[in-house]
Amino acid sequence: MKSTRTYLDPIHREIILDFNNPCEKLICDLIDTPEFQRLRRIHQLGITHLTFQGAEGSRFTHSLGVMQIARKFIKIVSPHFPDIEEQTPFILASALLHDIGHGPFSHVTEKILDLDHEDWSCRIISDDTRVHEILDNFSKTSNLAANIIKILKKAYYPKYVSHLISSQADFDRFDYLLRDTYLAGTSYGMFALDRILHSMIIDTKDDRIVIDGDKGLVAVEDYLFSRYSMYTQVYYHKKNLAAKALLASILSRAQFMLKNQIRLNFCDDATKKWLLKDGLSTYEYLKLDDIQLNYHLKRWCEEDDAILSDLSLRFLNRRLPKTMYIDESELSESLISKIKDTLNKHGFDPVYYFRVESTGFKPYDYYRPEASLPQTNIMIKTNNGQIEELSKLSKPIEAMTKNDYATSFLTFPSELVSIIEQIKELQSCAT
Amino acid sequence: MKSTRTYLDPIHREIILDFNNPCEKLICDLIDTPEFQRLRRIHQLGITHLTFQGAEGSRFTHSLGVMQIARKFIKIVSPHFPDIEEQTPFILASALLHDIGHGPFSHVTEKILDLDHEDWSCRIISDDTRVHEILDNFSKTSNLAANIIKILKKAYYPKYVSHLISSQADFDRFDYLLRDTYLAGTSYGMFALDRILHSMIIDTKDDRIVIDGDKGLVAVEDYLFSRYSMYTQVYYHKKNLAAKALLASILSRAQFMLKNQIRLNFCDDATKKWLLKDGLSTYEYLKLDDIQLNYHLKRWCEEDDAILSDLSLRFLNRRLPKTMYIDESELSESLISKIKDTLNKHGFDPVYYFRVESTGFKPYDYYRPEASLPQTNIMIKTNNGQIEELSKLSKPIEAMTKNDYATSFLTFPSELVSIIEQIKELQSCAT
Amino acid sequence: MKSTRTYLDPIHREIILDFNNPCEKLICDLIDTPEFQRLRRIHQLGITHLTFQGAEGSRFTHSLGVMQIARKFIKIVSPHFPDIEEQTPFILASALLHDIGHGPFSHVTEKILDLDHEDWSCRIISDDTRVHEILDNFSKTSNLAANIIKILKKAYYPKYVSHLISSQADFDRFDYLLRDTYLAGTSYGMFALDRILHSMIIDTKDDRIVIDGDKGLVAVEDYLFSRYSMYTQVYYHKKNLAAKALLASILSRAQFMLKNQIRLNFCDDATKKWLLKDGLSTYEYLKLDDIQLNYHLKRWCEEDDAILSDLSLRFLNRRLPKTMYIDESELSESLISKIKDTLNKHGFDPVYYFRVESTGFKPYDYYRPEASLPQTNIMIKTNNGQIEELSKLSKPIEAMTKNDYATSFLTFPSELVSIIEQIKELQSCAT
Amino acid sequence: MKSTRTYLDPIHREIILDFNNPCEKLICDLIDTPEFQRLRRIHQLGITHLTFQGAEGSRFTHSLGVMQIARKFIKIVSPHFPDIEEQTPFILASALLHDIGHGPFSHVTEKILDLDHEDWSCRIISDDTRVHEILDNFSKTSNLAANIIKILKKAYYPKYVSHLISSQADFDRFDYLLRDTYLAGTSYGMFALDRILHSMIIDTKDDRIVIDGDKGLVAVEDYLFSRYSMYTQVYYHKKNLAAKALLASILSRAQFMLKNQIRLNFCDDATKKWLLKDGLSTYEYLKLDDIQLNYHLKRWCEEDDAILSDLSLRFLNRRLPKTMYIDESELSESLISKIKDTLNKHGFDPVYYFRVESTGFKPYDYYRPEASLPQTNIMIKTNNGQIEELSKLSKPIEAMTKNDYATSFLTFPSELVSIIEQIKELQSCAT
Repeated sequence: MKSTRTYLDPIHREIILDFNNPCEKLICDLIDTPEFQRLRRIHQLGITHLTFQGAEGSRFTHSLGVMQIARKFIKIVSPHFPDIEEQTPFILASALLHDIGHGPFSHVTEKILDLDHEDWSCRIISDDTRVHEILDNFSKTSNLAANIIKILKKAYYPKYVSHLISSQADFDRFDYLLRDTYLAGTSYGMFALDRILHSMIIDTKDDRIVIDGDKGLVAVEDYLFSRYSMYTQVYYHKKNLAAKALLASILSRAQFMLKNQIRLNFCDDATKKWLLKDGLSTYEYLKLDDIQLNYHLKRWCEEDDAILSDLSLRFLNRRLPKTMYIDESELSESLISKIKDTLNKHGFDPVYYFRVESTGFKPYDYYRPEASLPQTNIMIKTNNGQIEELSKLSKPIEAMTKNDYATSFLTFPSELVSIIEQIKELQSCAT
Repeated sequence: MKSTRTYLDPIHREIILDFNNPCEKLICDLIDTPEFQRLRRIHQLGITHLTFQGAEGSRFTHSLGVMQIARKFIKIVSPHFPDIEEQTPFILASALLHDIGHGPFSHVTEKILDLDHEDWSCRIISDDTRVHEILDNFSKTSNLAANIIKILKKAYYPKYVSHLISSQADFDRFDYLLRDTYLAGTSYGMFALDRILHSMIIDTKDDRIVIDGDKGLVAVEDYLFSRYSMYTQVYYHKKNLAAKALLASILSRAQFMLKNQIRLNFCDDATKKWLLKDGLSTYEYLKLDDIQLNYHLKRWCEEDDAILSDLSLRFLNRRLPKTMYIDESELSESLISKIKDTLNKHGFDPVYYFRVESTGFKPYDYYRPEASLPQTNIMIKTNNGQIEELSKLSKPIEAMTKNDYATSFLTFPSELVSIIEQIKELQSCAT
Repeated sequence: MKSTRTYLDPIHREIILDFNNPCEKLICDLIDTPEFQRLRRIHQLGITHLTFQGAEGSRFTHSLGVMQIARKFIKIVSPHFPDIEEQTPFILASALLHDIGHGPFSHVTEKILDLDHEDWSCRIISDDTRVHEILDNFSKTSNLAANIIKILKKAYYPKYVSHLISSQADFDRFDYLLRDTYLAGTSYGMFALDRILHSMIIDTKDDRIVIDGDKGLVAVEDYLFSRYSMYTQVYYHKKNLAAKALLASILSRAQFMLKNQIRLNFCDDATKKWLLKDGLSTYEYLKLDDIQLNYHLKRWCEEDDAILSDLSLRFLNRRLPKTMYIDESELSESLISKIKDTLNKHGFDPVYYFRVESTGFKPYDYYRPEASLPQTNIMIKTNNGQIEELSKLSKPIEAMTKNDYATSFLTFPSELVSIIEQIKELQSCAT
Repeated sequence: MKSTRTYLDPIHREIILDFNNPCEKLICDLIDTPEFQRLRRIHQLGITHLTFQGAEGSRFTHSLGVMQIARKFIKIVSPHFPDIEEQTPFILASALLHDIGHGPFSHVTEKILDLDHEDWSCRIISDDTRVHEILDNFSKTSNLAANIIKILKKAYYPKYVSHLISSQADFDRFDYLLRDTYLAGTSYGMFALDRILHSMIIDTKDDRIVIDGDKGLVAVEDYLFSRYSMYTQVYYHKKNLAAKALLASILSRAQFMLKNQIRLNFCDDATKKWLLKDGLSTYEYLKLDDIQLNYHLKRWCEEDDAILSDLSLRFLNRRLPKTMYIDESELSESLISKIKDTLNKHGFDPVYYFRVESTGFKPYDYYRPEASLPQTNIMIKTNNGQIEELSKLSKPIEAMTKNDYATSFLTFPSELVSIIEQIKELQSCAT
C-alpha cells in the first residue's frame, strides 16, 4: 500500500509526505480542501507577471514551499531540541495556511480595497469550512484552528512559533525570495537558505528565534541584501507600479458605478459585495480569485461605460500608463492641477487617468509598529554569547535600515507623455 | 533615447530586443498586440499544473522563448551563412506566433472538441487583426502574413525554415522541454541546447536542416531521451490523464445540454459557439482563454444540472477520477459493460463518469504522416560526409522508435475503486 | 561545544557530520587520515582536464560525495527498513574509502602499467596504516577493516551492501556522473538522483537492490542515457585518448630506460619501484599521486634522453598527438607498417610516437564477467510485482546494451598529419 | 575545414573561438603557449581547497573565463560604440594574460615571500617567451606586448581599457566571484553579471567606465554584497588563515636553512633561487607552480631538520594550527611573551609555531592608493545625467566602505589549545 505523496517543486525539489505520520497526513488533508485548492487560482505575485513574464506561479505552490522549509527546519532542530515535536502540527499547518485568506491579485487589491488577507485567513480557519473541519478532527486537545489563528496574529505561546511564520526572517520570506527570483529570471533573490536554517536557534529563555552569528551572520546580511534588491528591481519596478495604478482606477470606477447605481452589464454577486465591502460571507469570499476578477476585467471591456471599458481594455491588452519619476520637492499642487487640466482637456477624467504613486519599503526595519512584538526582529548571538539586534552589529544593515527608499511617480496615459513632460519642465524652470 | 526592451526569462535569462533593428522592432510590435497578449492567459501545459503544481507558465512566456532560440540560432549561423538574413523576419515572427491560435487549456480541449490550433493560428494571422496589420506594415514586398501561414503549414520555400519551426527537432520542442522540466521540478528534460544549435547545418542542396554528427549526434540522442522521459513522467502522468478525462466529461455534458436545449444558467456567447462548433468568428475566438473556461467551470458548480455541477465541483476542487491500469488483452466488452452497470447502480452515469483513456507516443517517429515531408525527420551528417536519417545510425533511437508505448487506463470516480477492483479481478480469473 | 563539521559541496551542498553520532565520527576520523588526505592530490578524472579544462576536481571531493549519497539513501530507507542501521558503518566507510587505492592520474596509469587500484585499496585498508587503525578502533565486534575489503571485493553478506557501492547503479557512479557533467560544463550527465534513491528497494529475499519500476524505471533509463552520453562525449573524447596515448609512451620510455639501465637524471625511489613494478610497499605507494608524477614529467623535460624529454615537453605544454579515425576494416598490417616507415623516416621512433587506440564501452552490460555476481545488474520490480532485469523491460536499454560502441584511432605526431592522411587514402583506394 | 575551437566552462558554458577572426586566433595561439598552459598547474584559490574542498579550479580555467566576459562585453557594446573594435585585441589579450605571472599557490606565497605577480606578468610578456613572440607577430603596428603591460600597470590610453581589466568592478572579479562561489558550494557570490555588463557605459569624455544607474545600480550593489560575503565566508575563513600561517612557517624555515647553509636534502635550483629571491630568470620562474612547491613539501616531510619535516607533514596531512580569535585590546606584549614561553616549554619554536594573523579588507574602498587613478572607482550615472561615485549614492555601500572588518587570530599547534586558552583567560581577568 502506497503510503507517501510526492510534490515536485522547482525550488525544493521533492516534497515527500508520509501518510503514516499524523502531521504529514494532516498537511495532505489540508492541501486537498477546496479552500487550499483555491490558492492555485491566485498568482503569488499579483500582476507582476505583466512586467516579469515568468512570474506566473501561484500561492498554492508557494504555500507548499513555506511548509517544506518549515519541515526542513524542524528536522534540523529536533535532534538538539526534541520539544519542537509538540509544536510540529502548529508550525506545519500555519506555514501551509498562512496565505489561505488571499483574494484576487493578492496584495494588489488588498491595498486598493483596503482589505486584509490575514483577517480573511482567520475567518476561513474559524468558520464552517473544510479546512476548519480537518483542523478540528486532528486531535481533541490541540485546538488546532484556534491556535493557528493565534500564531497568525502573533498571540500564540511559545512565541517563537509565530516568529518562524511571520517576522523579519520567516519561512514565508525565505520561500518567496528564492521562488520569485527564479521565476522572474533574475539572480538578486538568491541567498544561503540552508545556512540560515542551520544557524537558527530557539532561545527558550526569552522565547524567540536567535541567529548563531558565527554561522549565520553573513548569511542573514546576504538574505536582507537579496530582499532589498528584489524590492527595488522586481516588486517596485515602475511598470509594476503602472499596472497597479491602472487596476486601482478600474476597481474604483466599478465601485463608483455600483455605489451610484450606474448599470454594469456584468458583475457577479460575490464581486459586487466585494467591491462594495458589503456583507461578504466566507462562502462568498472563497469564490473570489484571479479567475473571477480577470473574467470581469475581460467582460468590462464591453461595458457601455466609456471609462470602465477603456481602462479594462488597456489592462487586458497591457497598454500600461506611463510612469514619470518626480522628486518630492517638485510635487506642488499647481503642477498637479495643471496636469489634471491637461488630462481633462484631452478627454481623460483625471480621477481615473492620473495618480501619484509613491513607493517605500525598508528591507529590514528595526523600529516598526511590531516593535511592541520585538520577537519579529532579527537577533544575533555573538561570539561572546551576547544577543543583539542585527542592525547594531552590522553597519551595512544599519545603513539600509535608516535609508529612505521612497520614490514618487506620476502615472497617466502614455498618449500624453510629451505634453506632461513639457508641463513638468516648465514647472521646474519656474521654481 | 532608450532603444532596447528587455525580457527576463528563467530559461534564457536576458532577451534584449533592439528597436533600431527592424526585425526586433517587428517582434516588439507583435508582442504588444492584443492577440499575443492573450497568450498570457493560456497555460503552456493545459491543466498539468494540477499534477505538477509548478507547471504554471503561459504560452506567452514559452513563445518568447522559442523566438529567443531562433535568434540564437541565427546569430550562430549567420557568419557562415549570410543568406539567412533575408529569412530572419520570417523565422523570428513564425517562431513567436506559432502558438497564437491556441485556445483554452491548449491541447487538452483541442483533442476533446476536435479543434486544431494551427487552423486558428492561420485565421488569426490572415484575418483582420492587429497581428495581421503589423505583419502587413513590415514591408511591401515580403508578404509576411501569407508566408508565415505557409511556414506553419510546411508549404514555404526554402523548406528549411519550416523545419526550424516545426519538425522532430524544432525550436518549439527545444524550448518547452527545458522550460517544462524546470517548472515541473524534474531533471528529465535537460539537454545540451547550445550544442545542438551549434551542430545544426543548413543543407542548401536538399533544402533542409542537417545535424553535424561529429558535434551533435549524442546531443540529439540525449534530447530525444529527454523528450521520451518527459512524456512518460510528466505529460502522460496518470493523474494528468485523469484530469483530462474529467474535463472531457464536463465539456461533453455542457455540449449535450446546449444541443438539447437544457437550460445552462451561465454560458457566454463565445463559449456557447465554441462548444457547439457553430460559426465562431476570429473576433469571438480571441475571447477564449483559460480565464474564460475556468470561470465557466466555477459557475457551473452551481448549475441545476446535477451531472454538470458535480463534475465541475470535482474539477475545481481537484477530486480527480481514479485511474486503473488495464492490459489491452483484458479490455473486453463484458468487463466494460459490467463496470458500466456498477456505475449506473451507484448513480453515476457512465457516459460522464467512465472513460477508457489510452496514451501512446513516439519520442522520435521516423514514419509519420509527415513522411511525405521528409524534412521533419532528423538527418545526420556522418564523418564521411554522408547524410542519414538518425534512427539508422543510432541503435537506441531505433529501439525507441519501434517500441510501442501505448498504455490504457480505466477512469472512474474514486468512490468506486474497491468495487471496480473486484470486478476486474473476477474478470481476470474468469479468463 | 561545537559538535558538527560541515563540508560544502557544489553537488550535494551542505554535508554536515555530527561527532555525537558514532558512524559520523568514524567518517570524520577517516577523512583526517593521511591516506584519505592524499586523495586531494589525485584528480578525479586523471588527465581529462587537458580536454575539459573545468574537470579539475579530486578523488577527495568525489569520495565525500559518494559517502553523502550513501547517507541520503540510508535516511530514506531506514523508516521502512530499520535493519539498515547495523549496516550503516559498513556502507558509509566503504563508500568513503572505495577509491583510497587510486594512484597517479587514477585510471589512466592503471591501464598503462596494468595495476589495479582496488588491490591497493585493500592493501591500504589491511596494512599498518592510520585508516586501518581507525577502522580497528571503531568497535571490537564489527571487524570493520576486513569487512570493507569484503564489500569492495563483492564477497560480503548481506550482498546488497556491495551492490550499493559497486554495481551498474551504485553511489560511485551516481556521484561521478553528476559531478563530472557539472565540472566539464556539459548537461549530459544530469539525471534524477533523488528519484532513483527513493525507488531503490532492499530485496531481502534475494539479498539485492531492486528498483520500484513505477517510481524509478524512467529515472534509471535516464541515468543510463546520461552515462552513455558522458562516455561518448567526455570520457572517450578523442583529445582525451590522445593525451592518454602520449602519457603511455612517456611511461613506457621511462620504464624501458630503467630496465635497461639508461641513466635517468631524476626519478625518486617510489616512482622507480612503481614503474618497474618491483616490491613497492604500501608506505611507498602512498607517496605516489598526481603531484609526484607531474613533477617527474616536468623534470623529464630536461632529461638527456631525446625521446623522453621530447615526449614530456609535448605533454607538459599540451602539444597532443593527432588522432585519426580509422575503420577497423582498414586496419591492415601493410598500412601500419607503411605508417611506421614514414615515422622512422622523419625521425620519430614508432614505438613511442605511434599507437592504435581503441575504445569501447557498454553503458549497461547485462552479460559481464560479474554475471556470476548477478546482484550488480539492475533489477526492476514491475507493476504486477515481478522482478526482471532492466534490458528485458526497456527496448532502448536493450539496444544500447547490444550495440558495439568500439572505435579505433591512429595517434601520431601532428607534424605528420598530411603525410599520414595521404598514406591512408592511398591504402583505401588500393583495397 | 573546421574553423572553431570550443571550450566548455561550468560558468560561461560554451566559449567558441573562431580562427577566421584574427583576435580569436590570437587568443587560441596565446592559450597554446607553454606559459599559459602552466596556469593549469596553479590553483585559482591557492590552498583554499584545504578548507572548501571543491575549490580546486586553476588559473587557466579562470583566465579563460575573464577573457569570455570581455568578449561578451564587447559584443554588447560594439553596436553602440563601434570604436571598441580597435581596442579588441588589447582587451581580450590582457583579460587572458592578466594572471600569467602568478607563482606557486598564487597570492599565498606572494604575500609570504613579498613578491608581486604583476611584475612577473610584465616580465613574461616582455621577455623572450612564446607569449611575447605571438604578441609581436600579431601586427606590425599595434605593439601588443608593450601595450598589454601598460594596461596591467594602468598606464594605457584610452584609460577605460585598464578599468575593464583591473578596477573595483572588473572582469577579473566578475569571473572569480561567480566561479569561486560555485566551486565552494555556496550561494554568496552569485550576482547579476549580465545586467552589470549591459549597464556599463564607456564614458569617452572622461575616459572611464560608468554604470547606468537606472539599469545597474542595484546590480552593482548586489555584486559588492557578494564580494563582501565571499571575503568573510570563504577567502578569510579562519581555517584558510591557519593553512596560510602554516605554509608561511614552512617557507620561512626553508629560507632560513638556505640562508644559513643548513643542509636541505631536496631543493631544486629554481625553488632555491625563488626562496632566496636571488637572480631568478624568467625561464626559471616559469618552472615554478603548485606541482613544484607541493612536491617539495612532500619531500621535506623526510628532511633531517625536525622543524621543517614536522611542519611539512602537518601541512601535507592537513593538521592545521588552531586559530583563536583575539580582540586587539587584548593583544599585549605580556600575553604574547607568555604564550611564546609556553610554546618553548613544550618544545615548539615560537618563531615557526606561533603567529598573529590579522585580516582586513574593504569590499569597496573609495579611498585607496589608486585614488590617484580614480578610474578604478565605481561611477554611477544617475537619472538626471550626473555621474557620482557609488558610495555617495548608496547608503549601504557607504557603510560597508567605512566599516572596519579587520580581526586578529592567534595561531599555534592545536596540541596546546587548552593551555593557551587558560593563559588568555588569566590575562583577561588581570586586566
